Amino acid sequence: MAEDMFVDRLLSAIEKKRSHVVVGLDPDAAALPPTLRVKHGLEQGDADVAAVVGCYREFLSGIMESVEPEVVGVKIQIAYFEALGNSGYRLYEEMTAAAAHLGLVVIADVKRGDIGSTAEAYARAHLDHAGADAVTVNPYFGTDGLEPFFRRVRDAGKGVFVLVKTSNPSSSELQDLRLETGATVYEAVADSVNAWGKAVIGESGYSSVGAVVGGTHPDQGAALRTRMPTVPFLVPGYGAQGAQACDLAALFDSSGTGAVVNSARAILYAYKKTDADWAVAARAEAAQMRSALWAAAGRA
Amino acid sequence: MAEDMFVDRLLSAIEKKRSHVVVGLDPDAAALPPTLRVKHGLEQGDADVAAVVGCYREFLSGIMESVEPEVVGVKIQIAYFEALGNSGYRLYEEMTAAAAHLGLVVIADVKRGDIGSTAEAYARAHLDHAGADAVTVNPYFGTDGLEPFFRRVRDAGKGVFVLVKTSNPSSSELQDLRLETGATVYEAVADSVNAWGKAVIGESGYSSVGAVVGGTHPDQGAALRTRMPTVPFLVPGYGAQGAQACDLAALFDSSGTGAVVNSARAILYAYKKTDADWAVAARAEAAQMRSALWAAAGRA
Repeated sequence: MAEDMFVDRLLSAIEKKRSHVVVGLDPDAAALPPTLRVKHGLEQGDADVAAVVGCYREFLSGIMESVEPEVVGVKIQIAYFEALGNSGYRLYEEMTAAAAHLGLVVIADVKRGDIGSTAEAYARAHLDHAGADAVTVNPYFGTDGLEPFFRRVRDAGKGVFVLVKTSNPSSSELQDLRLETGATVYEAVADSVNAWGKAVIGESGYSSVGAVVGGTHPDQGAALRTRMPTVPFLVPGYGAQGAQACDLAALFDSSGTGAVVNSARAILYAYKKTDADWAVAARAEAAQMRSALWAAAGRA
Repeated sequence: MAEDMFVDRLLSAIEKKRSHVVVGLDPDAAALPPTLRVKHGLEQGDADVAAVVGCYREFLSGIMESVEPEVVGVKIQIAYFEALGNSGYRLYEEMTAAAAHLGLVVIADVKRGDIGSTAEAYARAHLDHAGADAVTVNPYFGTDGLEPFFRRVRDAGKGVFVLVKTSNPSSSELQDLRLETGATVYEAVADSVNAWGKAVIGESGYSSVGAVVGGTHPDQGAALRTRMPTVPFLVPGYGAQGAQACDLAALFDSSGTGAVVNSARAILYAYKKTDADWAVAARAEAAQMRSALWAAAGRA
C-alpha cells in the first residue's frame, strides 16, 4: 500500500482550503472571453486549431492560477481537448502538469472502461503518463476492467472515481432499472464500489476508490451517502446543470466532508454576468460556491 | 438521412471481400517483431516515445497494407495509442487516415460515454476530426449521452456500436444482473439498441446503430442475434481471447451476414508461430480466419 494515499490528500486539501470545490476544465471556444478570442485571432472565421489551443492554454492557465486559493482541485474533461485532435491532447497533458504544479488535486475526467489488457493501457495513459492523481472510470465491464486502475490505487497513491449515478437527464434509463433483488442498477454498482473500496481505506477512514454521484438527484444522492459510508463522492451537476448548494447537504458526512463538487461553466464563464475581468470573475464565482458548499456541509 | 449509410458500406464490404474479418490495431511494443524492434532502437533500454511511435507506424502500416485483401476493416484500439501520450494520439489519427486511404472501414474503438454536451465533444473528436467511419460507445448514460453520435449516424453516414455484452470474464458482474422484468441488464440494453437502430435502417435492412457482442459467450450471442434482428454486430474475443469460428456461427443471420469479427493479437503477432516475415504471417492468419468465418457463416 502506498504510504501517501489519494483520499487522504483529497480530504486534507478540503480542510486546508476550507473548500469542497473542484473546478471543471471544459473549454469551449465559443464561450471564451472576447478579449482572448480577439488576441488569439478566433474572431476571424478561419482560425486554425493552433490558435484555439493557444487561446485555451492562456485561458485555462489564468483560470487555475486565479481560482487556486478557492478550490481543492481540477477536473479536466478530456473530451474538449480530444475534440481539437492531437494538439488538444497535448494541451490536456500540459494542463494536467500545470495543475499539479499549482498544488491542485488533478482528476482526469476520462470515463474510460474496457477489458483488462486495454484498461491497463488507459491506466498507463492517464495515471502514469499524463500524471493525473485520479481518473473517472465506467463500471460496465466489471472488476477485471477496473483492476489496472485499482492496482495504481494500491501501489502508487492514485485514486479512481467509478460512475454510479450520473447527472444527466437520461441517467435513469439504465442506471435506475430495478433488479430482481429490489435494488436498482446504480445501487448494485454502489455496493460493488463500496466493496472494492474496503481494500484501500486511508487514515481518513475513507477509501481511494470513490464514486461519481450526480448532484441533480438529491434524494438518491442522500441514500447513496448512507449506502457507501467510506466512499468519497465526486459530484458533477452543480451550477449550469441545475444543482444548488442546498441540494447537496446530504452528500457530505456528519463531519461535513467526504465529497467534492465540480463546477465548470458557471466558474469558467462567470465573466458573462459581471463587468469584471474573466479571471477575477471566475475566482469570485468559485469563492461564492466555496462558501455556499461550506455552509451546506454544516461547516460555516 | 445521409444517402450513403455506414451499415450499407459495411455489409457491401463483407460481400466484396468475402470476409467478416476486422483486424484490431492493438500495438504492444514488447510483442513487435524483433527485426523492427532492432531497427527502431527498441532493444536498447532507453528507447524514447518517438522511437516507439516510429516502430508502431511502420508495423501498423505494413500490417494494414498486407491484410487489406482479407479484411473489411480495422478496429483501432485508441488506448494503446493514448498510452504513449500525445505523440501516440497523433499516430492514432494518422493510422485512421491511412486505413481510410486503403479503402478499409475504420472503427475507432474508443468506448466513450458521457453527458450530452461532453458526448458532442467526443463525437467531434473521433467521427469529425479523426474521421473514423464508426465508434464504439458505452450505454451507461442513456440516450442523451448517445444522441451526438446518433446525429452523425443520421446526417453524416457514420456508424455506432453500442456495448451490449462484452467479451471479458467479469462482464457478467453488471451486464448479467437480472431485472425485475426477468431480462438481464445486457438484454435491456439490447432492446434499447434495437429501438435506437430503427430510425437508421439502410437499404441492406440493417441499422447503422450496431452492437458490441463478445464472441466468448456463444449462447448469449445467439439469443442476441434473434433479439436484435436488424442490428449489426461487432464481435470481439476471437483468437487470443478464446472464441473460435465455430462458436460464432449463430451470430450471423440466415444469409451469413450481419456481423464482423475482430481479431488483434492473433493476426498482428502471427509471426511468432511461423518462420515467415511478420507481414506475410499476418496476412496468412487473416486469410485463415476469413475462410473459417466464411464457412461458419454458411457461405463456403
